[in-house]
Amino acid sequence: MKIRVLLPTIMDIFNEEVKQEFAHYLDETTEVQVCNLDYGPASVEGEYDEALAIPNMLEKAIEAQNEGCDGIISLCFADPGVKAAREALDIPVIGAGESSMLFASMLAKSYSVVTVLPNVISMIENVTKSVGVHGKLASIRYVDIPVLDLVDKEKMEQSLFEEMVKAIELDKAHALILGCTGMMGVAENLQTKLKEHGYDVPVIDPSFASAKVLESVISMKVKQSKLTYMKPTEKLRTSR
Amino acid sequence: MKIRVLLPTIMDIFNEEVKQEFAHYLDETTEVQVCNLDYGPASVEGEYDEALAIPNMLEKAIEAQNEGCDGIISLCFADPGVKAAREALDIPVIGAGESSMLFASMLAKSYSVVTVLPNVISMIENVTKSVGVHGKLASIRYVDIPVLDLVDKEKMEQSLFEEMVKAIELDKAHALILGCTGMMGVAENLQTKLKEHGYDVPVIDPSFASAKVLESVISMKVKQSKLTYMKPTEKLRTSR
Amino acid sequence: MKIRVLLPTIMDIFNEEVKQEFAHYLDETTEVQVCNLDYGPASVEGEYDEALAIPNMLEKAIEAQNEGCDGIISLCFADPGVKAAREALDIPVIGAGESSMLFASMLAKSYSVVTVLPNVISMIENVTKSVGVHGKLASIRYVDIPVLDLVDKEKMEQSLFEEMVKAIELDKAHALILGCTGMMGVAENLQTKLKEHGYDVPVIDPSFASAKVLESVISMKVKQSKLTYMKPTEKLRTSR
Amino acid sequence: MKIRVLLPTIMDIFNEEVKQEFAHYLDETTEVQVCNLDYGPASVEGEYDEALAIPNMLEKAIEAQNEGCDGIISLCFADPGVKAAREALDIPVIGAGESSMLFASMLAKSYSVVTVLPNVISMIENVTKSVGVHGKLASIRYVDIPVLDLVDKEKMEQSLFEEMVKAIELDKAHALILGCTGMMGVAENLQTKLKEHGYDVPVIDPSFASAKVLESVISMKVKQSKLTYMKPTEKLRTSR
Amino acid sequence: MKIRVLLPTIMDIFNEEVKQEFAHYLDETTEVQVCNLDYGPASVEGEYDEALAIPNMLEKAIEAQNEGCDGIISLCFADPGVKAAREALDIPVIGAGESSMLFASMLAKSYSVVTVLPNVISMIENVTKSVGVHGKLASIRYVDIPVLDLVDKEKMEQSLFEEMVKAIELDKAHALILGCTGMMGVAENLQTKLKEHGYDVPVIDPSFASAKVLESVISMKVKQSKLTYMKPTEKLRTSR
Amino acid sequence: MKIRVLLPTIMDIFNEEVKQEFAHYLDETTEVQVCNLDYGPASVEGEYDEALAIPNMLEKAIEAQNEGCDGIISLCFADPGVKAAREALDIPVIGAGESSMLFASMLAKSYSVVTVLPNVISMIENVTKSVGVHGKLASIRYVDIPVLDLVDKEKMEQSLFEEMVKAIELDKAHALILGCTGMMGVAENLQTKLKEHGYDVPVIDPSFASAKVLESVISMKVKQSKLTYMKPTEKLRTSR
Repeated sequence: MKIRVLLPTIMDIFNEEVKQEFAHYLDETTEVQVCNLDYGPASVEGEYDEALAIPNMLEKAIEAQNEGCDGIISLCFADPGVKAAREALDIPVIGAGESSMLFASMLAKSYSVVTVLPNVISMIENVTKSVGVHGKLASIRYVDIPVLDLVDKEKMEQSLFEEMVKAIELDKAHALILGCTGMMGVAENLQTKLKEHGYDVPVIDPSFASAKVLESVISMKVKQSKLTYMKPTEKLRTSR
Repeated sequence: MKIRVLLPTIMDIFNEEVKQEFAHYLDETTEVQVCNLDYGPASVEGEYDEALAIPNMLEKAIEAQNEGCDGIISLCFADPGVKAAREALDIPVIGAGESSMLFASMLAKSYSVVTVLPNVISMIENVTKSVGVHGKLASIRYVDIPVLDLVDKEKMEQSLFEEMVKAIELDKAHALILGCTGMMGVAENLQTKLKEHGYDVPVIDPSFASAKVLESVISMKVKQSKLTYMKPTEKLRTSR
Repeated sequence: MKIRVLLPTIMDIFNEEVKQEFAHYLDETTEVQVCNLDYGPASVEGEYDEALAIPNMLEKAIEAQNEGCDGIISLCFADPGVKAAREALDIPVIGAGESSMLFASMLAKSYSVVTVLPNVISMIENVTKSVGVHGKLASIRYVDIPVLDLVDKEKMEQSLFEEMVKAIELDKAHALILGCTGMMGVAENLQTKLKEHGYDVPVIDPSFASAKVLESVISMKVKQSKLTYMKPTEKLRTSR
Repeated sequence: MKIRVLLPTIMDIFNEEVKQEFAHYLDETTEVQVCNLDYGPASVEGEYDEALAIPNMLEKAIEAQNEGCDGIISLCFADPGVKAAREALDIPVIGAGESSMLFASMLAKSYSVVTVLPNVISMIENVTKSVGVHGKLASIRYVDIPVLDLVDKEKMEQSLFEEMVKAIELDKAHALILGCTGMMGVAENLQTKLKEHGYDVPVIDPSFASAKVLESVISMKVKQSKLTYMKPTEKLRTSR
Repeated sequence: MKIRVLLPTIMDIFNEEVKQEFAHYLDETTEVQVCNLDYGPASVEGEYDEALAIPNMLEKAIEAQNEGCDGIISLCFADPGVKAAREALDIPVIGAGESSMLFASMLAKSYSVVTVLPNVISMIENVTKSVGVHGKLASIRYVDIPVLDLVDKEKMEQSLFEEMVKAIELDKAHALILGCTGMMGVAENLQTKLKEHGYDVPVIDPSFASAKVLESVISMKVKQSKLTYMKPTEKLRTSR
Repeated sequence: MKIRVLLPTIMDIFNEEVKQEFAHYLDETTEVQVCNLDYGPASVEGEYDEALAIPNMLEKAIEAQNEGCDGIISLCFADPGVKAAREALDIPVIGAGESSMLFASMLAKSYSVVTVLPNVISMIENVTKSVGVHGKLASIRYVDIPVLDLVDKEKMEQSLFEEMVKAIELDKAHALILGCTGMMGVAENLQTKLKEHGYDVPVIDPSFASAKVLESVISMKVKQSKLTYMKPTEKLRTSR
């Protein structure tokens, strides 16, 4: 099995960490490839960034299919380009946001997402509606740290913990989702810490979730419905 | 008042008709400008096309604001680029799909959309969910004619009429929306024809609807909420 | 274009102000007529008042149609008589509440209404359900001032501002609606004041919204669906 | 226990039958009084009729409370005047429509209403939304017989049976409600006939249901919430 | 009329009180029988207890039908065994939770349940979804007292009152339901006390509610739909 | 990793096939154990059967945890015992129904379930509501073959194909789920056959789906939320 992880950013500084994390998530026989954008935004923090990231993501996605990949992950919590790529491709395309919401919906009666900035709350809400699990959403909270500043892992983890406790106590969340794929490597710690505070709840890492979901659908030999995501019609399309 | 209508297509053959129609819809003191894309798809018939259309639409939208326009219309039923442009701009941005759905929701207990191809049904459903009027949607039907073939107005009108009757009789629609902005100039005729068949229901033209909604919000001095559509954060963004 | 605004009150003290405000909202070629009730309540602050107001409103509405009006507005946030008048008439009938909810639903992901008294909250909620935009309602708050005491504009505006800030901060509202048509002439001020406090959100005046919606539907040549609002059946009807 | 049944019609021809039926439904110690309107419509077949019926119903309801009644029934499937009377009174006010919907929601996973005319479908849908059981509504069908023609019981029963079979087979209804209080004395027969055809489902008579619900709430000593239905505010109210 | 009340507990200490209360609720010609379990849990405080209680409840339910009872009540707020017994039996089976939710939905625009422990909140939410009145649920609160400790009536009543006030003031509840059938004999007092504090709202006792609903459906000659609750298929079933 | 699959049937004839299928689904390092019931029903075809199956399932589940299993699957589409076992255990418990619904919700805008008998439709609907993906359910259809007769694989496959085509064409399903875990080994064939008929849609095998979901949550080190599924309280519980 060979999968490719698409990062919707022009920065290549995350590639190595993502590759190592995915190698850890996936079966050892699965080959993971990671690629970032040639052009587009430095990070996705709103609809505007998303729109600028998708065209090159689609090129990368088509390239991955042409090069024999078995599936693709859009590694960003807002699932940029997932719908468009599902139309264009015949291999499964999976988003990190949708994957984590589905595990949360199954394991608890309600979930909260803790994300980076208020700018992305509406986008994430639209993902919950499109996936169909909006009814279980307790709240979307944020740590007020831009994506590219998530490198200070200690500060991020502390802020996440504080918002997660509020999500449980004030918003009645029974499961928690890290609302940015940049929040890597802290889910297990946070789960342990919450348990020590009396809250034995799942904390879901969206990158990990997307890895397992893609591996699952590939082995089940299913992919996106081509009735929902129909093949693009023939026509003239130009680029700059 | 000066407004600009953005057509998400690289073809310029519609510009003149759109300009004339909008001049007819709007107050005579309102100046209408119409522009199509420099690069992107020939028409929007799915998520893939939409993704390719938006980057240049955003450039055109920003240009319109810089040139003193009071508001912008994204003239396509799937409302491409509306969310991203609302983040980037401080003048109102209005979509043709959302505008027509709101009139329909107000005038009837249920509505159907008759669009071009099955490819766009999911996109349109997502618009109904995002606007918040999904609960009144009776059905989305299609005439199975690509956007660029809508030039055969007679065939289009006949097909629309047939699907509208089915929407009323089978799906219990009480109002009807033309589900493509390429379906210009036929709403009134169809309304009359349906009335002659015993169905006195509103038939809404999405272009006309968006013209009236934009004119209304400009005169009310309101625009998109900047809490929902926050200003894009500062960062590096590159293009091809 | 000639429209008639029906005030569901036996008091004629508002007529002049309403007429002037509407003249300001509408195209200058539109003729506005305003009329209040011959019998009924002094104001509508609940279901009981509404029930007493509607019979005479219906008489006034039929009279307006007979006298050649092109459309009618029920100028009260609970939209009294709109459904019944839509059955009886063949010209468009528009309510102030529904009109403002539709603009709010389009411009933001959530909205709050700030109204006069707790007595009308259930009525307003029923309007949101009937229009189909209940899913976006963040909250209904009130200033605790009866309709007829709204004459103290300064106190009203200050109370509205306080509740609007709470709606944004506590209820997560991204757009605001004045929940009584007696709250005239303050929307723009409140919008400015909220912006100065960091909240750049639309504040919608229901009277203004209804004026624009009626003007729009008349020019689009659409009206209420006569499948939803069927013509009253022939029968004996007596009055006191 | 003393209850009064209000018929929203100026005809007094039903009073005796209603009285006898209710005597049969209720505990023998319960006293039943029936009254029709002094002015208003001959029957309620739409929003327009309902609006004309309510003012006198409210007078009758207040009279009933003043004369020591323990509770009131609005005997019409659209529950005319129930909300307004609940504000005005301190004794329980119950509608026939809401009562039957609640039994149906409890006894089956879905229900259909079979009513008189298409004119009342929207009103009934609004009742299902206001009560909160819209999610279980399979369909609203009609026999196309005006209220006052329901006297031909044989024709009515046959038409009801046909629509009920369609509701089960086409709309997946698992319970059935007679959608007009004029359809008295046929529920049990229809239930038997459906069972003979292989459909062992409840058929609910709205008059019977309202009788049991009112009796129940009176004996439980509960009534409408006065937070939802607040006491009308003091003000001038005039009548013709 | 002869009804049997099934207590999902192996304790027989409540039988006498339940019998007396029901004698008080029901018509004096109705015979009430009460029985507890031979094996199962001491009380139902979660899904695990419920699962252990149901098999013997089903045996008791079948026994009741065989002995000529006209209907059965599952006397526990989570309605244990109601669905399974409805399949097995041809007489009506009613749950205490569903009965009280239906009265609350009819009498107010929103309701809260105050129950015993946090353990049962999810179960109760599932009942609201299954009955179809989840949309009106304001909140589920708890007094943090196990079922078997409800014998200290004074403490229970005081805790209930405190949570009810919070439900009204913080959660906007307009009606209240006692969320455990062990909370007998306090509803009327609590209603009075709340009224004295300015909240004139219904407080519903689930045991009383189930008694009235069962009596009502028996007299209406309706029962559960056998399309929703089909007769169990023939097969081998063994027990320990 | 060691997982145990619980079959809610007293028949042991399926154990070997299930074991082989799961060995095929899972990573080769995962150990699979399969066990059926000591007492209970021969198959689960309704709420009554489910209630009889759960007590022994819970004993088997606890045994599995005590014997060092890392997770448990309830191998039946109605997810019997999942909620109760989640309370009792500290290892993940996964149902076949919920697992397949989540993949379907992610891969398509709507899904249908094709199950065995009409008897289980309501149970399955309740699973969709409890998981939170009811909004995407297009329909539940059935082949009218009892569980124990599914051994005629050819007949089963043919019937499934016919109902799946109806689900797509009549109910607008865009993904399909086999609605019984007894329908093993046919999903891939059906998917291929549907594709040959022009419908390129995912067909999900619930056993396969549950295997992948359990494996995923174990490797992600998450389990059910213990706020939703709280540990059973201490108390006396007896068995026959």
